[in-house]
Amino acid sequence: MTQEALIQQIKLKKSFLCVGLDIDLDKAPKIFKNHKDGLFEFAKAIIEATHPFTVAYKPNLAFYETYGVKGWEAFEKTMHYLKSNYPNHFTIADAKRGDIGNTSTRYAKAFFEGYGVDSVTVAPYMGRDSIEPFLAFQDKYAILLALTSNEGAHDFQYCKDGTTLLYEKVILESQHWKHADRLMYVVGATKAEAIASLRKLIPNAFILVPGVGAQGGSLREVAKFGLNAQCGLLVNSSRSILYASHQDDFAIAAANEAKKLQIEMEELLYNKGIL
Amino acid sequence: MTQEALIQQIKLKKSFLCVGLDIDLDKAPKIFKNHKDGLFEFAKAIIEATHPFTVAYKPNLAFYETYGVKGWEAFEKTMHYLKSNYPNHFTIADAKRGDIGNTSTRYAKAFFEGYGVDSVTVAPYMGRDSIEPFLAFQDKYAILLALTSNEGAHDFQYCKDGTTLLYEKVILESQHWKHADRLMYVVGATKAEAIASLRKLIPNAFILVPGVGAQGGSLREVAKFGLNAQCGLLVNSSRSILYASHQDDFAIAAANEAKKLQIEMEELLYNKGIL
Repeated sequence: MTQEALIQQIKLKKSFLCVGLDIDLDKAPKIFKNHKDGLFEFAKAIIEATHPFTVAYKPNLAFYETYGVKGWEAFEKTMHYLKSNYPNHFTIADAKRGDIGNTSTRYAKAFFEGYGVDSVTVAPYMGRDSIEPFLAFQDKYAILLALTSNEGAHDFQYCKDGTTLLYEKVILESQHWKHADRLMYVVGATKAEAIASLRKLIPNAFILVPGVGAQGGSLREVAKFGLNAQCGLLVNSSRSILYASHQDDFAIAAANEAKKLQIEMEELLYNKGIL
Repeated sequence: MTQEALIQQIKLKKSFLCVGLDIDLDKAPKIFKNHKDGLFEFAKAIIEATHPFTVAYKPNLAFYETYGVKGWEAFEKTMHYLKSNYPNHFTIADAKRGDIGNTSTRYAKAFFEGYGVDSVTVAPYMGRDSIEPFLAFQDKYAILLALTSNEGAHDFQYCKDGTTLLYEKVILESQHWKHADRLMYVVGATKAEAIASLRKLIPNAFILVPGVGAQGGSLREVAKFGLNAQCGLLVNSSRSILYASHQDDFAIAAANEAKKLQIEMEELLYNKGIL
């Protein structure tokens, strides 16, 4: 999927919402718990309920991996379902991968060619040659961790190299990598003020913001500092949509949550002059 | 597996060799290429040929993931085979995982409980709460990336925070985490001089050294700086053993390569007074 196509979808849907598929059968409505295909069926129900209000889906690989081979089958099936039914939705494998070159190439092939996802989240610690293999695929994207929303972000991401913080250095350095135009960045919503300074470093890149909702970030703040002239933002919400209700009305509740965010986003896009 | 049991195996085998299972069917001998269970059968043949000379096996998850669901089945089967036949060998899932707490818990459960591995490699970028979930399992270990052997290691790992380099800070900080005694560290063999300074920071922790062989590190240098009174080292070799020959004699060639390293290691352990 091209960035232009993604931007077009954002304008069409009046939304920059990404729904995180953190599929947890312990928290899912009862009907999925003992269903032999519960992982897929719950994801499918959530996608069906929320797709009018979203432009992206972000399966969290850990939640599939934890179910072993069965989990991977469900992931494969979910990706196939998405690509067949909602080909205009951008897909993000939230996998936080990254390894030496020949190994990263394997991960990239697995996700881009094997499962057909549009993008993968990657961790920067091993540097350029661990990420460039993900950037070698046309119309595919690596979403690089810059500043994360968890408490542990403070342990290393704020290391000061001269006057530059590590998360800033990650962004600055990575802009020199081959096919840097295929990079997007993860910046946590709990750090809205940081989004402002980062936006200056990467005026055109897409920023994926996790942590609106259950992780406590404010959508309005994020948009204020993060929107660029083409939107340039994907804001993710997982738990607050997936588990909006644990009863039979879970799909309606999920749709309502997603719609609420979409309406807020429409206003933000309108005020910014994007719509 | 306890660290004491691992140390006992090292003394018994007179070896601190880990064989990396980077199973690449394109490079494997012909008989495995079109075999329906080629991934597993090649790994099994390598394990059978090398187990007398090794104390650990390190499946590289990317090489399994790239084959999709079939790859995960092969990984599961390989782990089951190892645990059933060679329960005294330490197993390392080389997966470089790490995410926010509730997600890391899923990864940890998948590898430790689901597949029964003894340890998982993890990336430090997201800090304490991304790694501690891996340390919550008795007799299981997280092997934290400190200084890697690839060129990209220079991009961020040498960031200077005051007088401390980022990879040193990763080691120093992580020693304060809950169950830090379940931490081991990855330090690349191409950086033998760095192993010396790191050994002072973590006199007792195990260090996993990739990069001897195809990645160009010297075993003698690594041992000189890295061995502690209990050994404290696992040195990995992957490609130089797995692909020692591409012909029918691949198993003998792999065994010979492993044996050569074991003999060198025996001498190093003897000279250090460990044997």
